[in-house]
Amino acid sequence: MSSWQTLVADKKKRQQESIPQEWIVSPPPDDVLNVTGFPGQSGLLSAKELQITNEVDVQVLLQKLASGEWSSVEVTTAFYKRAILAQQVTNCVTEIFVERALKRASELDAHLREKRTVVGPLHGLPISLKDQLCVEGLETTIGYVSLIGNYAKKNAVLVDILLEAGAVPFVRTNVPQTLMWGETFNNVFGRTTNPYNRTLTCGGSSGGEGALIALKGSPLGVGSDIGGSIRIPASFCGIYGMRPSYHRVPYEGALNTLQGEDSVPSVFGPLSNSISGIKAFMKAVIDLEPWKKDPLAVRKHWDHEAYQLSEHGEGKCLCFGIMWDDGNIVPHPPVLRGLTMIKDALVNAGHIVKDWKPINHKEMNDTAVAIWGAAAREDFRMTTLSTEEPIIATMLPESNAFSEAAVDTRYPQEGISSYQLWQLHKRKIELRKEYLDHWEKTAQDTGTGRPVDAIIAPVAPYVAPPHGKNRPAGYTRVYNLLDYPVIILPVSQVDQELDVKVPPHEYLNDADREFHQWYDPALVRDAPITLQLIGRTLDEEALVALAEIVDAALRSQYTGDVKACNLHDSLPTTGHEAL
Amino acid sequence: MSSWQTLVADKKKRQQESIPQEWIVSPPPDDVLNVTGFPGQSGLLSAKELQITNEVDVQVLLQKLASGEWSSVEVTTAFYKRAILAQQVTNCVTEIFVERALKRASELDAHLREKRTVVGPLHGLPISLKDQLCVEGLETTIGYVSLIGNYAKKNAVLVDILLEAGAVPFVRTNVPQTLMWGETFNNVFGRTTNPYNRTLTCGGSSGGEGALIALKGSPLGVGSDIGGSIRIPASFCGIYGMRPSYHRVPYEGALNTLQGEDSVPSVFGPLSNSISGIKAFMKAVIDLEPWKKDPLAVRKHWDHEAYQLSEHGEGKCLCFGIMWDDGNIVPHPPVLRGLTMIKDALVNAGHIVKDWKPINHKEMNDTAVAIWGAAAREDFRMTTLSTEEPIIATMLPESNAFSEAAVDTRYPQEGISSYQLWQLHKRKIELRKEYLDHWEKTAQDTGTGRPVDAIIAPVAPYVAPPHGKNRPAGYTRVYNLLDYPVIILPVSQVDQELDVKVPPHEYLNDADREFHQWYDPALVRDAPITLQLIGRTLDEEALVALAEIVDAALRSQYTGDVKACNLHDSLPTTGHEAL
Repeated sequence: MSSWQTLVADKKKRQQESIPQEWIVSPPPDDVLNVTGFPGQSGLLSAKELQITNEVDVQVLLQKLASGEWSSVEVTTAFYKRAILAQQVTNCVTEIFVERALKRASELDAHLREKRTVVGPLHGLPISLKDQLCVEGLETTIGYVSLIGNYAKKNAVLVDILLEAGAVPFVRTNVPQTLMWGETFNNVFGRTTNPYNRTLTCGGSSGGEGALIALKGSPLGVGSDIGGSIRIPASFCGIYGMRPSYHRVPYEGALNTLQGEDSVPSVFGPLSNSISGIKAFMKAVIDLEPWKKDPLAVRKHWDHEAYQLSEHGEGKCLCFGIMWDDGNIVPHPPVLRGLTMIKDALVNAGHIVKDWKPINHKEMNDTAVAIWGAAAREDFRMTTLSTEEPIIATMLPESNAFSEAAVDTRYPQEGISSYQLWQLHKRKIELRKEYLDHWEKTAQDTGTGRPVDAIIAPVAPYVAPPHGKNRPAGYTRVYNLLDYPVIILPVSQVDQELDVKVPPHEYLNDADREFHQWYDPALVRDAPITLQLIGRTLDEEALVALAEIVDAALRSQYTGDVKACNLHDSLPTTGHEAL
Repeated sequence: MSSWQTLVADKKKRQQESIPQEWIVSPPPDDVLNVTGFPGQSGLLSAKELQITNEVDVQVLLQKLASGEWSSVEVTTAFYKRAILAQQVTNCVTEIFVERALKRASELDAHLREKRTVVGPLHGLPISLKDQLCVEGLETTIGYVSLIGNYAKKNAVLVDILLEAGAVPFVRTNVPQTLMWGETFNNVFGRTTNPYNRTLTCGGSSGGEGALIALKGSPLGVGSDIGGSIRIPASFCGIYGMRPSYHRVPYEGALNTLQGEDSVPSVFGPLSNSISGIKAFMKAVIDLEPWKKDPLAVRKHWDHEAYQLSEHGEGKCLCFGIMWDDGNIVPHPPVLRGLTMIKDALVNAGHIVKDWKPINHKEMNDTAVAIWGAAAREDFRMTTLSTEEPIIATMLPESNAFSEAAVDTRYPQEGISSYQLWQLHKRKIELRKEYLDHWEKTAQDTGTGRPVDAIIAPVAPYVAPPHGKNRPAGYTRVYNLLDYPVIILPVSQVDQELDVKVPPHEYLNDADREFHQWYDPALVRDAPITLQLIGRTLDEEALVALAEIVDAALRSQYTGDVKACNLHDSLPTTGHEAL
């Protein structure tokens, strides 16, 4: 056993020992693909613990915690047990620190009892953290063997802010090596699987969060997103997730790859089983003024007017742009069905839906990848140097990931010069300008007098694919380059009868052909269907409010009455009308 | 004559022809150093034109324009004539377009007459623009021969916004080649001199603005600042100037050097003869929502509460940190006298002043220079390639700037790799974090319960030096790296009796010795004394309000009564008390 494998064996042993023995159960056999029912059936959770963890509305959890109806120790214990169950069926967790979390929960309970007031807006709520968010005294490996033993001397700023808000950090969650994959596998902790179908990927890089929250093993989690790393796992696991704009949520003091790449940077954001969880996180973090602790955090208070949709007609008669495909890969049947469902729901709710025309999506994708590739492989090499752990070349299960010969060919072997990088940055700004103008110009066609209020788009051209198949992140990456905030909303699940394979279309390119050909509803049984709701840079407040409206439209039963949109010059459209 | 010299000769001929012949006067002989009195003595301006151009308060000008008391044609004509006088004594202007400006002024007058309402908050006000701000149909050379004939197809976004605000762009102003000098000289338009003493530099790179506004040839101008390029000319020419935070004022559509260098980027900001000009510009631009036209512009409305100093005790009993030197170059006597004057004025006005301890200033300087140097020379080479104009190697008048052999050695010949650049970016963020924490910690010592409200610092270790002598921009550059907004406030002028040479101190380094040694009050006769007032990232509103307070303290006559600061645990300090 080489030295890096010894390090891994030791780390895994320590991880296993950090689990209370009484929480270890008999997991279902490997051929049980959908394990979402497992926590309820395992027998580990009491009826009350099931009641607590089945409460998906974070606002309800916070109210019960703030009123003392449920103690933080109760709630934290319940979610912790369920998280450990999630770990046993999907391998989603990295750091486990039960005693520490329960000690904090107990202190918060005492505070509430004695002072009759909450510590902050997230009082007593357990929160899971992607394995980048350093917590004092804990290791942060971000999936690198070379970082085993990397104990943090202090908390990341976001962790400090969550503590100030009264939250209870209770687990850290799995990631892919390098953080630059849309799946979750590394040499330290191995692979995380999708709880809806374990032959499918949970997505990545915040894949541990995706699987954990989908199993209701955490009410609220923090992921990061440089090209889709919050949105892809939120989508593949059927939960809510938000990619905020650059620097709205503090990154200071967290560990990351590609450090210093600050042109299309990674951002932290929340994942949850409810839109109320997304809002609670964003408002709590912003209200605690992260710019006083993170020099890059944008000094911008929570904008109540924007949340009231003051620039969006107070939320009446909204106009959404819907992007059916990005011009590169035609989405699979369940994804298109999801788009149709959301369109119908919005029209029924009295809103306007028009087709959104994508521009420059391929070049935006290529530019983002070229920017990261400017020094990605040098960055990866430098980080793996000390242990010579192999750099993972593919996410395929049958991969030769552990072979020294494997080479990750997604980025160029040699980096580029600073001058070449600056030319990419320059082009990136031009592309952002073109898209901004494109969006602003829609004001001529919406009938509301405003540009499109938000864009609806697929998260990927498919639902969660089999392990190793999630290759292009083109549908998400463009919004990182554009720095548009995005919220993932769950819509439905794959239906074997509705989502049958369709005949070939005129393929746009080789990848389009390849993706069309492998689709088979049986292969993606039970996979969730979701969508991206896309807003304007640094307008998180409006996007959250718009997401609440779209979410409500999706959840409401259609009564047969289409609400009329009271616009002098426009009525809800039917069919695909282009902008 | 080589081809680039032919291009220059043609351009200068066209520039000369763009001046109305009747505005050409006999300038004073070259040995008249201080030409600030020249516009008044020239005979070109009528009494009313002198009255208009001598009105330094932009708010008063705007009121008179809005009420119709003064027409825009009158005001624009007056400033235009004075600008052409400024041109004849300091060579500060590049593009001259009298007919076009007066046509617009006339249209604005008609609008006010007919509609009885202003077009926008800057209705009718002439505004000068640094030679980067593209105006449709005009050439933008940014001081490069290779860009002669570069006619803009559309306005820069900031120009569009200023037009929407009702302003009248009327001249463009001179810059140094590459824009990366703290003086103003290029192969196209030559050198701009300091109106207070023409043997001294006007500073740079927005040097044309500095000289023009100091001569009251423009009430409000726009410069840009990547390392001090607004602040240095504002300082050397004794006017107000503001460097806003990154992306608060739109840069989209303007021409620049080092394009794509977006880690320590250049920003646009105002220069004026009054703090009211600074405020009028900032509020007008932000109120017009630049984020709808510039994808990088921060979506942040003008923050009225911040301007009311809600986070600064409503402006009562403020605590200022004063930095006497940056630990690298000890400032010359007039600069130190300026700091003492401001300290006394603030204490007399009832505020607290404590010494500010600089940290990491040298490393912050080196890091900023290394980031720009990552590809600066490649950028310069690429831009000069087409005409083979020489790259200017020094700002000394006796320079061999025009010799092909001259080499600008400020940046490395070969650039660095993207990976190396990312390491600099990473270090930059660490340096910003250290300074943020340093500032926040002062809350323990101010006595106000808050961190220091603003920092006061020299703009340079000297007042305007002789041409070619303005080498390090260390006092300004650090705030670009830190992204702190800064306002320049005029304090006084060099006094031959008060600002005598002082004996040597223990030199901090060779540069410190060199700068100490050349000082002689006779050499910098009449040069203005100014200071930097430094605020928090993206807190422009509070900084403007704080600048109004400091400016009022400076302008008010000291009555002998020290206003008491009504703090339970603190009284105004005397002497230099360190934080």
